[in-house]
Amino acid sequence: MKNTLITGLLIACSALFLAACNQAQQQEASSTQAIDTSKTYHWKMVTTWPPGFPVLQQGAERFANNIKDMSNRRLDIKVYAGGELIPPLQTFDAVSQGTVEMGHGSAYYWAGKVPEAQFFSTVPFGMTARGMNAWLYDGGGLELWRETYKPFHVIPFPLGNTGVQMGGWFNKEINSLEDIKGLKMRIPGIGGKVFAKAGGNPVLLAGSELYTALERNTIDATEWIGPYHDQRLGLYRAAEHYYYPGWHEPGSVLELTVNQRAWDSLPADLQAIISNAAMAENVRMLSEMEQKNMFALQELMARPDVQLHRFPDEVLAKLKALTGETLAEEAAANPKFKHVYDAFEAFRAKNKAWSDISENAYLAIE
Amino acid sequence: MKNTLITGLLIACSALFLAACNQAQQQEASSTQAIDTSKTYHWKMVTTWPPGFPVLQQGAERFANNIKDMSNRRLDIKVYAGGELIPPLQTFDAVSQGTVEMGHGSAYYWAGKVPEAQFFSTVPFGMTARGMNAWLYDGGGLELWRETYKPFHVIPFPLGNTGVQMGGWFNKEINSLEDIKGLKMRIPGIGGKVFAKAGGNPVLLAGSELYTALERNTIDATEWIGPYHDQRLGLYRAAEHYYYPGWHEPGSVLELTVNQRAWDSLPADLQAIISNAAMAENVRMLSEMEQKNMFALQELMARPDVQLHRFPDEVLAKLKALTGETLAEEAAANPKFKHVYDAFEAFRAKNKAWSDISENAYLAIE
Repeated sequence: MKNTLITGLLIACSALFLAACNQAQQQEASSTQAIDTSKTYHWKMVTTWPPGFPVLQQGAERFANNIKDMSNRRLDIKVYAGGELIPPLQTFDAVSQGTVEMGHGSAYYWAGKVPEAQFFSTVPFGMTARGMNAWLYDGGGLELWRETYKPFHVIPFPLGNTGVQMGGWFNKEINSLEDIKGLKMRIPGIGGKVFAKAGGNPVLLAGSELYTALERNTIDATEWIGPYHDQRLGLYRAAEHYYYPGWHEPGSVLELTVNQRAWDSLPADLQAIISNAAMAENVRMLSEMEQKNMFALQELMARPDVQLHRFPDEVLAKLKALTGETLAEEAAANPKFKHVYDAFEAFRAKNKAWSDISENAYLAIE
Repeated sequence: MKNTLITGLLIACSALFLAACNQAQQQEASSTQAIDTSKTYHWKMVTTWPPGFPVLQQGAERFANNIKDMSNRRLDIKVYAGGELIPPLQTFDAVSQGTVEMGHGSAYYWAGKVPEAQFFSTVPFGMTARGMNAWLYDGGGLELWRETYKPFHVIPFPLGNTGVQMGGWFNKEINSLEDIKGLKMRIPGIGGKVFAKAGGNPVLLAGSELYTALERNTIDATEWIGPYHDQRLGLYRAAEHYYYPGWHEPGSVLELTVNQRAWDSLPADLQAIISNAAMAENVRMLSEMEQKNMFALQELMARPDVQLHRFPDEVLAKLKALTGETLAEEAAANPKFKHVYDAFEAFRAKNKAWSDISENAYLAIE
C-alpha cells in the first residue's frame, strides 16, 4: 500500500510539476529510494509524420535521443515514422492498446473518436502557443486532457507546437466573402466545417497529394503549415496568392501519448525524465519552427511569382463568427465537448485581455 | 584522448540539442557507457531573487527538484535565494570563481562587467520570448552567449522568461513627450538611458524600496514586472496610472549559469539532465507568468482606482528612435558589444517580418 501511494505521488508529480506536489514527494521519497538502475527498457514510439519529416519527426527523434542520454540508455526508445510500423492515424489506438508504448501526433487527429480532443491541439480563432502552454501547464488544461484520455489508458503531454500557421495558397485573390463561395479548398477539421458554412467547398487530401491537386486545379486552394514546410512542398509553384494569418490553426499543439500501463511500469526517475524531456522538446520544436519559417518567408518573398496577402477584415470577421456558431452547435450536441469547450473558452477570454495589452500591444508598435 | 573527445561531444550535444550532433554522439557513445552511477554530487545554486519570490525563485527551486527526481538524487542541488549565501548581484562572480556551482538571474545584471550580455536578457524594443527562444536555441544566440561568458568560465542556459512586461505605474497621465520631461522614474539599464535621452530622470532603486518611494512621491513613476508581481508589491495603492506595453523589457530571459569546471566534472547523463531541465523550466516559468498575469490583470482592472493606458504613439516612436541611437553609440564604442548587437539585430529584423504576418497579424484580429 505504501509503495502504491508513493508511486502514485511520484507519477502525479513528475507529470504536472506542481511545487506543492514536489514537497509531498520529497517527504515520501526520503523514506524510499529503491530504484533498480540495472533494468533497461526498450520502447517503441510511433508517429503520424512521414519519415524524416523536418522539425516534427526530427523533433520526436531528438526527444528520444535526449531521453537515452539522460537515462544513460536505461530507457531506449526506437522511433518509427508514420506507416513504418503503424499507419499514421492508428497511432492513438496503438498506444491505447499497448501495441507500442508511445506516440507522437496531434490531438485533432482523433476527433472522430474523441471530438473534444481538438481543444488540446488547436481550434480556429483559439490561442497561440503562448496561451496554450499557459492553459495546459498552469490553467488546468493538462488535467482536463488527461481526464479526457483516461478511458483510453493514454497519458498525454504537450510536445511541440507549429506556431501560428499560414492561411494557405490560393489560385485567385480573396477580396470578399463572395470569393469563397464554391471555392474548393483542402482544409480539414473544424476549420473545414467553418469554411463550408461560409460557402466554401472543403476537401480532404493527404499532404503528399496537395501539390499535384493544386497544380492541376483539382482544388483551388490549400492550407498546409507555414512558410518552411509550404516551401518544401513547392506549393508556390502551383498557386501564387499566399494568405495570412492562419485563422484555422493559430498554434497547433503536438502531443506525446504514453500507454498508461507502460508508464506505470517505469521507475520514478525515468518518469521524471520523460516529463522534462517532453517539456523541453515542446519549446525547442516551436523555436525551430519559428527560426525556419523566418528564413523561408524571406526566400518566398524574394520570388516575383509569390504574392502575399492578408485576408480581408470582412472575411476574418465572418469566419470568426461562424467558428463561434460551429463550436456552440457541437457543444449543444455533446456534453463532453461542452465540458472542455467551456474551460478552454473561459481561459481564452482572460488570456486575450492580457495578450491585448502585452504581446499584442507590443508587437503592434510600428 | 578518446575520452576527452567523447566528453567534448557529449557536452556540446546535451547543451545545444543539435540533431546532427546527436548522430555523432550516438556513434561515439556506442563504444563507451562507463558512467559511475554510485557517485553523488552536492551542488549549491545561488539566485538573484528574494527568498520565496514567486515564479522566479520558486521556478529555480522546481528546476533543482526536477533534477533531483531525474537523477535519482545523484545530483542534489541546494538553492539559496539572494543574500542567503551570496549577495544577489555577486551571483555571477560566485559561479565564475567556483564558490558555487550554479546561479540563476538575468544577464543584464552583469552589464557593468559584460555590457553585451544585455542582449541575452532583453533590450528595449527587442524580441519577445518567442523570438528570443528562436534566436538562442536555433539562431546562433546561445553559441554567442557561451562565447561571451567563456572568459569567465561560466556556461549560460536560458531558464525562464518574464514575458512582455508592463510599462509601469505613473502618478500622472503621459499624453505627450512633454509629460516625460523631468519625470523621476525608477527604470534601470538601457531603458533608463533611453528614458534620460527623452528628458526623463531615471532613478535606481531596489524592488523593496519601490512602494514607499512612489507612495511618498520621492519618485513619480516606477516600472517593475507585470500585473502579478506589481499587484503583490501593492503599487496600485501608490499610483493610479498603469501604462502598457513594456517597451523597455519585451521578454526578459532568465539565465542559469554553471561553473565550467563543475560542469566538466559531471558525467554525460547528468549534463543532459541539466540541459533538458533548464529548457523545460524555461517554458514552464513563462507559462506560469502568463497565467498569473492574466488573473492579476483582471483583479487590478476591477479596482476603481486603477486606470489602464497605452503609451501614446508619439512617445513610443520617440523611445524607439532613441533606443536605436543608444545601442548604436554603445556599439561604436565597444567592438564586443557591436559583435553581439549585429547578430541580434539581424535576427530581430527577420523575426519581425515573420511575426508581422503570423503572431502579430493573428493577435490583431478583433
